[in-house]
Amino acid sequence: MNGFKDECGVMGVLGDNEASHLVYLGLYALQHRGQEACGIVTVDDDKQGKVLRSHKQFGLVSDGFNKDILSRLTGRLGVGHVRYSTTGGNLVQNIQPIVYQSSENGSIVLAHNGNLTNAETIRKELEASGSIFTSTSDTEVISHLIAKSKKATVKEKLISALQQVKGGYSLVVAAEETLYAVRDPYGLRPLVLGKKGNAWIVASESCALDLIDARFVREIKPGEFLILKEGQEEASEFPFEKKPEAFCSFEPIYFSRPDSTQNGSAVYIQRKRMGEILAKEYPTQADVVVAIPDSGVPMAIGYSQATGIPLELGLIRNHYVGRTFIEPSQAIRDFGVKLKLNAIEGVLKGKRVVVIDDSIVRGTTSTKIVRMLREAGAKEIHFRVGSPPITHSCFYGVDTPDRKKLLAAQITVDKIRDLLGADSLGYLSNAGLKEALSDKSQGYCMACFTGNYPEDICAPISKQPTDADGPGYFASK
Amino acid sequence: MNGFKDECGVMGVLGDNEASHLVYLGLYALQHRGQEACGIVTVDDDKQGKVLRSHKQFGLVSDGFNKDILSRLTGRLGVGHVRYSTTGGNLVQNIQPIVYQSSENGSIVLAHNGNLTNAETIRKELEASGSIFTSTSDTEVISHLIAKSKKATVKEKLISALQQVKGGYSLVVAAEETLYAVRDPYGLRPLVLGKKGNAWIVASESCALDLIDARFVREIKPGEFLILKEGQEEASEFPFEKKPEAFCSFEPIYFSRPDSTQNGSAVYIQRKRMGEILAKEYPTQADVVVAIPDSGVPMAIGYSQATGIPLELGLIRNHYVGRTFIEPSQAIRDFGVKLKLNAIEGVLKGKRVVVIDDSIVRGTTSTKIVRMLREAGAKEIHFRVGSPPITHSCFYGVDTPDRKKLLAAQITVDKIRDLLGADSLGYLSNAGLKEALSDKSQGYCMACFTGNYPEDICAPISKQPTDADGPGYFASK
Amino acid sequence: MNGFKDECGVMGVLGDNEASHLVYLGLYALQHRGQEACGIVTVDDDKQGKVLRSHKQFGLVSDGFNKDILSRLTGRLGVGHVRYSTTGGNLVQNIQPIVYQSSENGSIVLAHNGNLTNAETIRKELEASGSIFTSTSDTEVISHLIAKSKKATVKEKLISALQQVKGGYSLVVAAEETLYAVRDPYGLRPLVLGKKGNAWIVASESCALDLIDARFVREIKPGEFLILKEGQEEASEFPFEKKPEAFCSFEPIYFSRPDSTQNGSAVYIQRKRMGEILAKEYPTQADVVVAIPDSGVPMAIGYSQATGIPLELGLIRNHYVGRTFIEPSQAIRDFGVKLKLNAIEGVLKGKRVVVIDDSIVRGTTSTKIVRMLREAGAKEIHFRVGSPPITHSCFYGVDTPDRKKLLAAQITVDKIRDLLGADSLGYLSNAGLKEALSDKSQGYCMACFTGNYPEDICAPISKQPTDADGPGYFASK
Amino acid sequence: MNGFKDECGVMGVLGDNEASHLVYLGLYALQHRGQEACGIVTVDDDKQGKVLRSHKQFGLVSDGFNKDILSRLTGRLGVGHVRYSTTGGNLVQNIQPIVYQSSENGSIVLAHNGNLTNAETIRKELEASGSIFTSTSDTEVISHLIAKSKKATVKEKLISALQQVKGGYSLVVAAEETLYAVRDPYGLRPLVLGKKGNAWIVASESCALDLIDARFVREIKPGEFLILKEGQEEASEFPFEKKPEAFCSFEPIYFSRPDSTQNGSAVYIQRKRMGEILAKEYPTQADVVVAIPDSGVPMAIGYSQATGIPLELGLIRNHYVGRTFIEPSQAIRDFGVKLKLNAIEGVLKGKRVVVIDDSIVRGTTSTKIVRMLREAGAKEIHFRVGSPPITHSCFYGVDTPDRKKLLAAQITVDKIRDLLGADSLGYLSNAGLKEALSDKSQGYCMACFTGNYPEDICAPISKQPTDADGPGYFASK
Repeated sequence: MNGFKDECGVMGVLGDNEASHLVYLGLYALQHRGQEACGIVTVDDDKQGKVLRSHKQFGLVSDGFNKDILSRLTGRLGVGHVRYSTTGGNLVQNIQPIVYQSSENGSIVLAHNGNLTNAETIRKELEASGSIFTSTSDTEVISHLIAKSKKATVKEKLISALQQVKGGYSLVVAAEETLYAVRDPYGLRPLVLGKKGNAWIVASESCALDLIDARFVREIKPGEFLILKEGQEEASEFPFEKKPEAFCSFEPIYFSRPDSTQNGSAVYIQRKRMGEILAKEYPTQADVVVAIPDSGVPMAIGYSQATGIPLELGLIRNHYVGRTFIEPSQAIRDFGVKLKLNAIEGVLKGKRVVVIDDSIVRGTTSTKIVRMLREAGAKEIHFRVGSPPITHSCFYGVDTPDRKKLLAAQITVDKIRDLLGADSLGYLSNAGLKEALSDKSQGYCMACFTGNYPEDICAPISKQPTDADGPGYFASK
Repeated sequence: MNGFKDECGVMGVLGDNEASHLVYLGLYALQHRGQEACGIVTVDDDKQGKVLRSHKQFGLVSDGFNKDILSRLTGRLGVGHVRYSTTGGNLVQNIQPIVYQSSENGSIVLAHNGNLTNAETIRKELEASGSIFTSTSDTEVISHLIAKSKKATVKEKLISALQQVKGGYSLVVAAEETLYAVRDPYGLRPLVLGKKGNAWIVASESCALDLIDARFVREIKPGEFLILKEGQEEASEFPFEKKPEAFCSFEPIYFSRPDSTQNGSAVYIQRKRMGEILAKEYPTQADVVVAIPDSGVPMAIGYSQATGIPLELGLIRNHYVGRTFIEPSQAIRDFGVKLKLNAIEGVLKGKRVVVIDDSIVRGTTSTKIVRMLREAGAKEIHFRVGSPPITHSCFYGVDTPDRKKLLAAQITVDKIRDLLGADSLGYLSNAGLKEALSDKSQGYCMACFTGNYPEDICAPISKQPTDADGPGYFASK
Repeated sequence: MNGFKDECGVMGVLGDNEASHLVYLGLYALQHRGQEACGIVTVDDDKQGKVLRSHKQFGLVSDGFNKDILSRLTGRLGVGHVRYSTTGGNLVQNIQPIVYQSSENGSIVLAHNGNLTNAETIRKELEASGSIFTSTSDTEVISHLIAKSKKATVKEKLISALQQVKGGYSLVVAAEETLYAVRDPYGLRPLVLGKKGNAWIVASESCALDLIDARFVREIKPGEFLILKEGQEEASEFPFEKKPEAFCSFEPIYFSRPDSTQNGSAVYIQRKRMGEILAKEYPTQADVVVAIPDSGVPMAIGYSQATGIPLELGLIRNHYVGRTFIEPSQAIRDFGVKLKLNAIEGVLKGKRVVVIDDSIVRGTTSTKIVRMLREAGAKEIHFRVGSPPITHSCFYGVDTPDRKKLLAAQITVDKIRDLLGADSLGYLSNAGLKEALSDKSQGYCMACFTGNYPEDICAPISKQPTDADGPGYFASK
Repeated sequence: MNGFKDECGVMGVLGDNEASHLVYLGLYALQHRGQEACGIVTVDDDKQGKVLRSHKQFGLVSDGFNKDILSRLTGRLGVGHVRYSTTGGNLVQNIQPIVYQSSENGSIVLAHNGNLTNAETIRKELEASGSIFTSTSDTEVISHLIAKSKKATVKEKLISALQQVKGGYSLVVAAEETLYAVRDPYGLRPLVLGKKGNAWIVASESCALDLIDARFVREIKPGEFLILKEGQEEASEFPFEKKPEAFCSFEPIYFSRPDSTQNGSAVYIQRKRMGEILAKEYPTQADVVVAIPDSGVPMAIGYSQATGIPLELGLIRNHYVGRTFIEPSQAIRDFGVKLKLNAIEGVLKGKRVVVIDDSIVRGTTSTKIVRMLREAGAKEIHFRVGSPPITHSCFYGVDTPDRKKLLAAQITVDKIRDLLGADSLGYLSNAGLKEALSDKSQGYCMACFTGNYPEDICAPISKQPTDADGPGYFASK
């Protein structure tokens, strides 16, 4: 329902004869991070040396992979990827992991979550020197930089390549017998380390470890370059210039699964705390608290517990939402939202309702939901948002609309309330979000709320930051 | 997750040029009632008379139907069906609506939710007189009885046929220009009437009306034979012997969508009330209430509100559960449950946990969930079930295991608690369920809990009823 | 290329553990008899008795069947069918073999090539007595007649059923442990008996025996009811009223594969003889003989050898003709023909050309081919047809156009020549055809050339027979 | 049936709004040149500049392309390709046309038939300088050389790139508004120029022009670099060092369609002449001449006309041969050949048979065919081959087995006759082949028969040429 889209989830396994099966299950647990395409590449040994096995497809992990495919993906080293395809479009060559083979370096397999902010510049330089690009993915730039490196070893080449790129990346690389796991110096995107028996596991979120009975070892650190080999302890280096921590705050707000652990705490707990603080910032006289499923639910629980207003399921989600729907020519009101949600009159009729959403991006869905609640009989509608107003686009791997389409970048909270048709509207303050995320909250990137990007952005964007720590955002009639 | 499976959902539309589109959307809203196959048949007028258009497929509505298919399904009269396939297996000829064409009666289209208890007997008689059956569906028996009837009109033939069958049926029939909607005399399965503009709509549940912006008119009555024609008021007849109302109590417990209205109340409200009464029957000293998603959630909200013990999301559901999964040869503990649920340690660790499920059928899943909660650190686990112990099989359209596999038919509540590994176990009492369902609760079939079947069952089953109104079912260490 | 379409090929195997594999290969050899759909049903023994295994699909045998499917089709008794779908349309329920299961008679599997001329009448009677039909196939009538029969055994029921039907049928039936093979009393459609080791094989044409290394035993006789059991000699009965032999003359002219043996002779030999006699009836002064591939080739060889005019490949066939083609909006002249054939200028330029086709149905393709030859530079075009003018529709299993669309039923040979744009046009005479087919030629049905149908036809058709033994049909400028 | 496989067909269209439709039909006519994969890329103008539209797939043109796909492939410039995949395997990234996009050069689309003999060497050099390859296709080398070129224009870059490669190529390139068509200096592979209205057409064979009603302009010359622009005359350059003509002699022997024009003559005529000369070189006392379809048929016609021995169809081809077949575990003799061919006893029994094939590569199929003829009763079998013994592998785009598997490279003609089980065996002599191909016959590459490769081959092969103009190759008992 959210206008923000995460782009990817990554998974790597080293040291298990069924590496492809474990990667497959990990991707299945990470499916919420990208539903448009997925791929697994394994590295196996053959008489003639390393052999790559690969399966890539559009669609969900559970739709395409089968026993035969997984059995063909032999080898003890595997890397996987789920992606939400961005503007590059549905090109099959954009499906990751990407592979690059050369006589000198052998095969190199890369899976990447994030976005490189200087990819375009590097790509133009490489093209000018005669390099050819076959995908529109920024990940391919890394392959070229490795190929161009004059360093002696693959490890050094990979470090050298990453020293040249800017932006956000959680990267899993398989080369020779080694699994590399790297987070950019800001730690913009998540990446965790696990162990299953003697096998090394790397995944975007800890929920992927849970499914395969792997032990959660720790989160990989910002700027960490981790070298994993079979039968050895992990070797950790920090080859990049140190930067302030800036973990994406939208991961706990919306992207990550509530059962994943981030920054030492379950995402569910963080999300619930957002609701609790929101309740303190904008308490309301109301009869029921209703969540917009699914990420609004933990926030609604927090809001309900903090205020004592009972939580009810006033909006029911259809669990069988597919990809495409045929609308009759006779328009059905709020068709898109209705496919996913239905309001229960028995819960809402004549009630003063607090409705909790995780964020407002464009505002179109929120407007429809308010109308749906109103038609179900809600007497008052107090809209509460578990995160601050989104005023700036993301350049680090989250697919956001143009600033022009970010509602809060265009109109005031008063106007937004009018547009939604709510009786009051309250956003969590930036300070409230920080508090909810923990005392380590300076460590988060909150650029989409503040415009304070962790590094200089190449793209021509408005850099005027909003007041990051000012009072909250509230409007009532 | 539940061992009970509903068999079908039905949908009918008369009087709209886009009847097939409305049926399609209705089936999409009813998808939870059957995911293995679906079909739509429309009746159109042609120069040569009535022409049937049909599309049937295995899989979800959203997977197969597309704009082209719906456009080919022309006509102002349409009938649709979603099914969960039973023992008859995945036969394409079992996909409904079933169609029967004859020069005498024209085309007759039938969609059926329920089960006919004397279908086998009738079938044998019909075969003995030379009739041929092409499916294993009991619905085909109705077609044959219509064909054999010596009555003058299709309406009379249909009534005559239904007078010969026993069991549960909510039936939608399209014949000539008429849409018939019939519920068996006990009203075992749901069926509602709606109107969209001038078009008549019939559906298994009211949530199908909501999606297409149709107005909910009323529930069709047990034993009612409803004749719907374009431009006319509905004509209602009661051609069957009157029977006591016996609406399936498992519809509000588990099958129906919480946003559907049944017996004058939202299913969500009924389900929440089960949780509230369960709290009164078995209050507990505990720190958190946790639901087993999804049907356990309303019950958990009720339990939490009645006891004041805070509700938390301690079990997170994966929204991308597909049909088949490949398990590695290295067994993963509780693999099947893990694919669907993950426990949050931060919520459960060191806590006394009340966990709420809608029912226990075989007990296998419940056992795995208790273990999962225990491993996440729960100190005490108090298992509460929002319905009474299931001790008898259903013969009216719900796919239940053999009695031998019904846990509560085999061992005592004490033993079940031991098996689950819970610290205490409490089931809602039969009286509690009645109370939750409303004062009209004699109107429900509770045979799966009591063995008091609404009619004589042909099958050789244990008829010894359990004590229907005795004290509740509770066991603690 | 031909406007006539055969409807089916049938195959049966009894007594081989890989019956499904042999049926599959047989259907593959019979693929020319029907390309729209195919199916195999096997009968296996299970603890619970006979179990049917079935696979049916649209498309070619080689497109859908695979190792997995064939392995699932267990059993020593199997029946298969390829069909060209007629006006009934592409209904999945029309794909044969058809199956009918009853407690009394067990499972009965039928595969049928032919057409029952009184099927409509019987169907109406059966419907009046309450029978339900689920396909539009005339074969289903046989199932119903079996079911209705009061005889004691399946064999007697089957005989009784077939005694009631009229028209053409080569029928393969599997029931209990027995394989039945029956030809209608006229012997309208082909059916041969073979043996592979101890296994019985029945097939529409002998080419199916060749592929699987089976021995050709003999052609099954008109009116023969053959009972095949494992480990026993074949038992033959003639339970039908004796009729004059009337084997379809279009089988040797067009339908059958040239390598099949019919009436004691290879079809290629018969076809070549048609060309030789045609040469005697209409010798021509010409430079080259050119065939319209493929069935025209043997006739052209015969014509060339009889006249001494050299045979050349002047029309080349594209071997990759698929089912559908997208024509650009800019029309391409004679698009349909060009997809299949191309003329070679180097062979045709400045030459007097004899072009040989097997038959002319509507004349559209022939006209385009003449134009194509003309454009490639042919100076004179002498069109010769290896069969007489088609003036009547078939009612015995060949899909023919309406009489109104049969060119020779509408205009004279003179006019046809003008329409084609040929310099002369000669059809084989009826007597010539008889001579070509052998001295046993009274045994052939030549109704499409003469109107002398072997039995009374129910359909309202012109019964005015054309002069069956008159002089040939020739026109020149 | 032949052990030689051509690798590709190419097609280009410039100046027609339905360019994609014309390319599609052209590929359909060229399908015999490659059946494993096909692709079309069109160049369209958009507000933002040139936009590429692309569809690639495994399988036949007629299986995948449809109206929707072709309609999406907008633009007046289109390039297409059919391929038989070589050792690189079934990689989707190997499907042509290949595309390379850069800011500097815009989009460049290449389709290539042939093989570059120095591709591996260049690839290693490029990789050493940091280039990345994503396919195993040698065509990608050309893309890289264009990208690396320092020349000013795309045309100059393309010429510069091609000046660095060796081997055989017929290349179609779309860049900016221009269609380039280039043949290597030896003219190893075919390429023809056509015109349809004002649109330019380029295709591997003239049969592609015939299908779309295009006019055959001329064959493109060896070493010719042709620049085609809308509304302009063609511009022709010869930028490469001049080499002796060496057109692949296997094109007229086997690859090309008989209705295509090459070297000024229909391939059918050339093929027939091979049969005539073969008859002169090895006349035989026999009763019938029988061809191995399809390329043997014109040779058999030539042989029959030259000797007066009548031609008969003794081997019938199954027209529905698919890609995969399931053989029962009970082996069927000569299964692979039987799927494709069946012998007619009525033609062969007791006869002295001359059987004509176009070539013998490994000899396995020929051996099976001789056995099949013998089993059908042939008294004597005189095997005649329309081309000389194949003793050397091809390095110019024809997929040939290892020399070790080339029968005639290993054993003498005597031994081959014994192996086949024929009574005599005669191959066309090298001189005979030259004569058949026309007086321009020095212009042909006959390296597979002689070892005289047109240029130095990098691969370590036996260079000892066989006696190119010696006496013929004959063996009899």
